[in-house]
Amino acid sequence: MQAEIVTIGTELLLGEIVDTNSAWIAQRLTTIGMNLFYTVTVGDNLQRITDVLRASMGRSDVVITTGGLGPTVDDMTREAVAAAADRELVLDEELVQEIAAYFARRGYTMTDNNRRQAQLPAGATVIHNPVGTAPAFYVEQNDHVIICLPGVPHEMRYLMEHEVLPYLQQRFGLQGMIRIRILRTCGIGESAIDTRIGDLMEMSNPTVGTAAHPGQTDVRITAKAETEAEALTLIEPVERELRERLDGYVFGVDTETLADVVTTMLADAGLTLAVVETTTHGELSHQLSDGRSAAAAFAGGMTFTSAEGLARGLRLTPEAMGREYPSQAIADAAAQAARAAYGADLGLALVGPDDPARPDSPPVFYSLALADGVIQGESRQGRAGPSGMGWLVHLGLDMVRRQTMQDALPRA
Amino acid sequence: MQAEIVTIGTELLLGEIVDTNSAWIAQRLTTIGMNLFYTVTVGDNLQRITDVLRASMGRSDVVITTGGLGPTVDDMTREAVAAAADRELVLDEELVQEIAAYFARRGYTMTDNNRRQAQLPAGATVIHNPVGTAPAFYVEQNDHVIICLPGVPHEMRYLMEHEVLPYLQQRFGLQGMIRIRILRTCGIGESAIDTRIGDLMEMSNPTVGTAAHPGQTDVRITAKAETEAEALTLIEPVERELRERLDGYVFGVDTETLADVVTTMLADAGLTLAVVETTTHGELSHQLSDGRSAAAAFAGGMTFTSAEGLARGLRLTPEAMGREYPSQAIADAAAQAARAAYGADLGLALVGPDDPARPDSPPVFYSLALADGVIQGESRQGRAGPSGMGWLVHLGLDMVRRQTMQDALPRA
Repeated sequence: MQAEIVTIGTELLLGEIVDTNSAWIAQRLTTIGMNLFYTVTVGDNLQRITDVLRASMGRSDVVITTGGLGPTVDDMTREAVAAAADRELVLDEELVQEIAAYFARRGYTMTDNNRRQAQLPAGATVIHNPVGTAPAFYVEQNDHVIICLPGVPHEMRYLMEHEVLPYLQQRFGLQGMIRIRILRTCGIGESAIDTRIGDLMEMSNPTVGTAAHPGQTDVRITAKAETEAEALTLIEPVERELRERLDGYVFGVDTETLADVVTTMLADAGLTLAVVETTTHGELSHQLSDGRSAAAAFAGGMTFTSAEGLARGLRLTPEAMGREYPSQAIADAAAQAARAAYGADLGLALVGPDDPARPDSPPVFYSLALADGVIQGESRQGRAGPSGMGWLVHLGLDMVRRQTMQDALPRA
Repeated sequence: MQAEIVTIGTELLLGEIVDTNSAWIAQRLTTIGMNLFYTVTVGDNLQRITDVLRASMGRSDVVITTGGLGPTVDDMTREAVAAAADRELVLDEELVQEIAAYFARRGYTMTDNNRRQAQLPAGATVIHNPVGTAPAFYVEQNDHVIICLPGVPHEMRYLMEHEVLPYLQQRFGLQGMIRIRILRTCGIGESAIDTRIGDLMEMSNPTVGTAAHPGQTDVRITAKAETEAEALTLIEPVERELRERLDGYVFGVDTETLADVVTTMLADAGLTLAVVETTTHGELSHQLSDGRSAAAAFAGGMTFTSAEGLARGLRLTPEAMGREYPSQAIADAAAQAARAAYGADLGLALVGPDDPARPDSPPVFYSLALADGVIQGESRQGRAGPSGMGWLVHLGLDMVRRQTMQDALPRA
């Protein structure tokens, strides 16, 4: 069984946005054991989309398209699929009602444009979209199937998970499967990991690979097997070996984030955390808020973009601010002030320059305030962009993780 | 003149990495006026790469490949180009010497694998690569040209800028260029925009298209012309017409974000803004911190994930919290408290349920506190995921934008 992805949109061909949908779909297809041999991107042009779809259906069993399902005249996927499959476009009255209801619930009136969205190739099966207005659909033709999904990532992902993957497994009787286990690490770089586990990366089933993300390196174990149980049996000893060699750096698995792990550890220990940050532009608060147990463990976060803002917002005296910004003393005062202001058990401060990536920038200072003192840290990482921000945020979260882990140990 | 990009690598088809090369190359091609109609991704398989290259050379004047030029057996671009162009592979002795010298300078010995990298299709022209070991090349055939670049982004980018773009301009006598103007809107959906400007989307030069992002719709004007001045002349009347029809919804152009515009308007007016948010998980603080004039205009932000956290952090009395959460009264109290706590001219509060996308969720309440009262608002948008968050954040920022615009008007 082989699949092909066709992403549709002139904005992709102008380089205005990067196509992240293809990689995501590709990953999900591996989990049901479906091969992907090609992906194609084409602009909003009826003839070219039609040509591409004809070629794709000629060489692949399953064609998945994203994009071009919106209400405007440059949304042409419906027409192109009809042309490529030699079918008429017909108005699906049930779908019209569904779209009208979606708008009504939100207090809007449906426009004529939105009726266009209910015009599907004859014989198409609607894939109901509860998370957006763009209706998705699939068309079966001569043992091939073409599946059309919206380009908006969260809608596409929802429909893939809930509708398309189960449909493909059932429709093509897929048996073999790929099971992936991801160990998430922080506080250690990709090349240091390679030094510890390089030999394991030469195995064939399961395979072991690494991928670096901002402030985090993933170690991926991929097993191919007939059944889930068999795949897990392949993975288990390799995971154990990897954990031993990466002792302490593995903070979670699969889709867990460091904020998930930290907020859950805190909640389990009955502790709350308040944070204050300057350099990282709210990213620390953002990640913690998204953490699985945030409501219980995250007492609140403060974001400032200047020394003046920090001093005024936290009511730090000129003495506390001292002569130099940033400094460890300011971070300590900020951590204690955050802890007090939000009535939290722990207060974490991340105080640094606005652009830590400049070679002459001072370091970023960390302070974790507890009931009986502070734990200090600093970073001169100096990486630029999202990678640098991710690194700084993860350093702070990891201080909390290590402290909470230690607190949770039985006392001697 | 039309171009096509072929990215080569199984890691792309497994979704292990996102293809960012295509978008980058696409952007650079627009600057020399070359059209891009397709991009294709194919794995490390000789037959499939060859098939794809044959099809690409059949429909496009210029084919640019990335990847598959390394020293290992799964690097097959050289063989595939030779096959697609019906040529032999021949060893380029000069290139062998060059690669050997590159390794010698770094204290390494060249392996036999690296000799593979010097085997090029007969008649190929070498593109010297001073920033890596993978030699690049191009092959001209029947008025078509296929250009093969390494997949490593910084090597590919260097070679595109320094070798490929100048070569293409000279080889195809490219005079024209493409100029893009993007009008960024918020507070209006894509289909409502379409109703206002649909007729303009049927023009051919410049073309007008829309693209929806979280909480924002972009209207793109694309002009092709011989000179920059000519392109701007084509764009100008269309931009004027679009701005008239989208009156008030256009907040910025090109790379400007709403936070850029809001913080700059505030800074110009000598005003500062403090924010407090619950539902949006720090995204409001995050966007404002990244705003162009954040240091001057953004007094600070507070993020909470529970009603208890909000009440404790802002010291809101049980009377202020009332019986129900969320409520407009809480939002008003929070906005005033944020304004007071951070000594700001304006205080914006966004107070709502943790999951606004649930059908039975209460609305998100907005309050913008000024010196002499509050401006209120609410949203029942209920979109899920990043799109929903982006929408909620932009609604809040747009309240500040509209208020600041009004304040900036000359008083009667």
